[in-house]
Amino acid sequence: MEFKISKELIQELEQLIQSKNDQQLEVLLNDMHHADIAEILDELDFDEATYIFRVLDSDKTAEILLELEDDLRENILSRLSPKEIAEELDELETNDAADIIAELSQDLKAEVISELQDVEHAKDIVDLLRYQEDTAGGIMHKELVKVNENWNVLTCVKEMRIQAENISRVHSIYVVDDEDRLKGRLSLKDLLTTSSRTAISDVYIRKLNSVKVDTEDVEVARIMQKYDLEAIPVVDELGRLVGRITIDDIVDVIKDEADQDYQLAAGISQDVEADDSIMELTKARLPWLVLALLGGFITVRVLGLFEGAMLEHGNLFFFTPLIAAMAGNVGVQSSAIIVQGLANNTLSGSLFNRLIKEVSLSLLNGVILATILFLGSHFLLNVEIIIGIIVTIALVSVIIIASLIGTFIPLLLDKFGIDPALATGPFITTSNDICGILIYFSIAKLILGF
Amino acid sequence: MEFKISKELIQELEQLIQSKNDQQLEVLLNDMHHADIAEILDELDFDEATYIFRVLDSDKTAEILLELEDDLRENILSRLSPKEIAEELDELETNDAADIIAELSQDLKAEVISELQDVEHAKDIVDLLRYQEDTAGGIMHKELVKVNENWNVLTCVKEMRIQAENISRVHSIYVVDDEDRLKGRLSLKDLLTTSSRTAISDVYIRKLNSVKVDTEDVEVARIMQKYDLEAIPVVDELGRLVGRITIDDIVDVIKDEADQDYQLAAGISQDVEADDSIMELTKARLPWLVLALLGGFITVRVLGLFEGAMLEHGNLFFFTPLIAAMAGNVGVQSSAIIVQGLANNTLSGSLFNRLIKEVSLSLLNGVILATILFLGSHFLLNVEIIIGIIVTIALVSVIIIASLIGTFIPLLLDKFGIDPALATGPFITTSNDICGILIYFSIAKLILGF
Repeated sequence: MEFKISKELIQELEQLIQSKNDQQLEVLLNDMHHADIAEILDELDFDEATYIFRVLDSDKTAEILLELEDDLRENILSRLSPKEIAEELDELETNDAADIIAELSQDLKAEVISELQDVEHAKDIVDLLRYQEDTAGGIMHKELVKVNENWNVLTCVKEMRIQAENISRVHSIYVVDDEDRLKGRLSLKDLLTTSSRTAISDVYIRKLNSVKVDTEDVEVARIMQKYDLEAIPVVDELGRLVGRITIDDIVDVIKDEADQDYQLAAGISQDVEADDSIMELTKARLPWLVLALLGGFITVRVLGLFEGAMLEHGNLFFFTPLIAAMAGNVGVQSSAIIVQGLANNTLSGSLFNRLIKEVSLSLLNGVILATILFLGSHFLLNVEIIIGIIVTIALVSVIIIASLIGTFIPLLLDKFGIDPALATGPFITTSNDICGILIYFSIAKLILGF
Repeated sequence: MEFKISKELIQELEQLIQSKNDQQLEVLLNDMHHADIAEILDELDFDEATYIFRVLDSDKTAEILLELEDDLRENILSRLSPKEIAEELDELETNDAADIIAELSQDLKAEVISELQDVEHAKDIVDLLRYQEDTAGGIMHKELVKVNENWNVLTCVKEMRIQAENISRVHSIYVVDDEDRLKGRLSLKDLLTTSSRTAISDVYIRKLNSVKVDTEDVEVARIMQKYDLEAIPVVDELGRLVGRITIDDIVDVIKDEADQDYQLAAGISQDVEADDSIMELTKARLPWLVLALLGGFITVRVLGLFEGAMLEHGNLFFFTPLIAAMAGNVGVQSSAIIVQGLANNTLSGSLFNRLIKEVSLSLLNGVILATILFLGSHFLLNVEIIIGIIVTIALVSVIIIASLIGTFIPLLLDKFGIDPALATGPFITTSNDICGILIYFSIAKLILGF
């Protein structure tokens, strides 16, 4: 059954830490899953967390380290010596170890690497450090099982046993040539049903998906999802097998990508969490707010252009927030659908068809909303008929323009290689505010002639 | 390497269909991955797609069916007889077959089920149909490997071989008692290194995560991610093993959940895609627009309350869209961070601390933005100093209130068991528009005394 942190458990731990009862702490925690212990440590203060961290074995703490919130991990690492950090890393898979090293300061990095005990492991980690975080190279593991196409089945099985020892899940056996170039894969079933003197080159499967080290991680995710793969091999520029990505790495990529798009749509430009520091949160939130503020300056200016209407038709100004809000909402809806379509690769058909569709859709929505608005302005808000008519015409026009802006800005950004997710949220609402208000007052001016 | 659809390929296929050259079609398509063929069919019209569907073998078309866009799948299924549909389903895993049956009309459902050839398979499918789509029961597969705790290793290995034939990936061997209740799991390694007469009950691992059939799918996703599981067994109310969920099913759950949250944040209330019909898109988009419109009515009313200020301080009204936009943007930012924190289970600390933090954060943002606004209103917009002061004070107040609304509405919704993702987007922007404008003019009234 699932583990739940209780207040009692936290209190008990805090007491044991205070009385330095290491033995009892070990008894209590040793049976728990490392992910659960990480959750507990996140609830304690830094000193208590570090204390527990020192009490437990490094095979356990290494795994815990991976699960901790960023700031707690940073804090604990800063209290450990390079040698102690290296001991943790020796327990981890290359990829996870490289991720932790990448977070360290430049000086500490070198010291920790020099303290690593397992030379092969250290080499692999250093190798991984040179890849960009968001590429196949950046998320791949070095741990995999590979055999040479020139071996026979017997040699192959022997070698596999040795290699598989360091790997938690085998998934696939890859076949390479003498230059380490990826040639194909072996099915475990075939291997077990073939005579032990058969050459590997006679039994391996030549058809196989692979990605390059510099393939973007979201592209890897797309391929693995599309072809329903549990693992995919990674090759370098020369086609040599250098690593492997498994589906659980991809789960993180998908989650991160979705979180990032969600934040972008909400006007948050860096990957932040509710528990990050106020400075980090400000850095992520302020840029979009400044943009919105500058957009606001323009709306002030635009409204100023129509100051002449104020004396006779003051209540025109009461509708500006309504028009702006509708423009913003419609624009965000349209852009969200396009951004998702682009991300999931489900957009088909020509630009012209999309234009026709978006116009029809917003015409339909616009007419329904305009009817409500017209009736509402008359019966609920008691404005003159002519103002009601102006507002209604403006609403339909604004909805059409806003949905076109919402549809085509993301498509345009995508064409120029910019993340279209940038175009949902503040960017769209701000530009639609400005356009919406301009259209509204232009229509009013045309009809009322002020 | 990755497959890319070319115009030439589509043209070639269309010609082959017109000339009814089935043989050449098979040659061209048989070597392709079913996911690629599905992509091609999505590009063709319904008649052409159905033609190709009939040319290919059912082991291939069954897999293709799963990958098609919803409307094309629906269309193709409507052209097949119940017997033809049943032939497709016989090729699929129980879970996938059940998903397709669930999309059929009530009458067709019964007919298709009666045409299924494999009785055991049919039973499993019918069994799966009774679970809610978004629960563990709704996403689990019936295909798994299980052994009885009372068997010995020899019987076990024999039975496993038989069971494993229908399963593409074994992952785990589950141990049950005579009543089929889940007791634990077996490691393949232990099984192979133990004498064949050893009782299973002596070697199996008793500690094991499992979920109930009615556990929500997002909860299953959370558990599997947290404990880094590749598969998890599903038990019924009596603890009997009834199915298994693998990590690739969870990838879909995570993706769907993220897509849904993203759409909710953008004011889209049903799961729609850019290529859905105009009616479906309207149904998903209109409700939130109506809400925003009604909110707009209130802002009109609120502004009407301050009509008296128009004669002397008309340019106060020029700033309403700016204030409303800032309130909306700040509110959406705050709510997005909380919604994500709730979804990812990363919120810690008390409500009071969160209050303090949110106020400090918005005070910091507010002061920076207010400075820009004050300078801008003076040098760029040339408004009187007193208006500049009012707008500046209003901005800081509005930002604080908006961020508090954005923070606590999702928390409140979550407390009452309502999806907090509802609270980002139109809901927050609309309520913040109203509050923002009310605060702004109240401050103006207090200072100017109109």
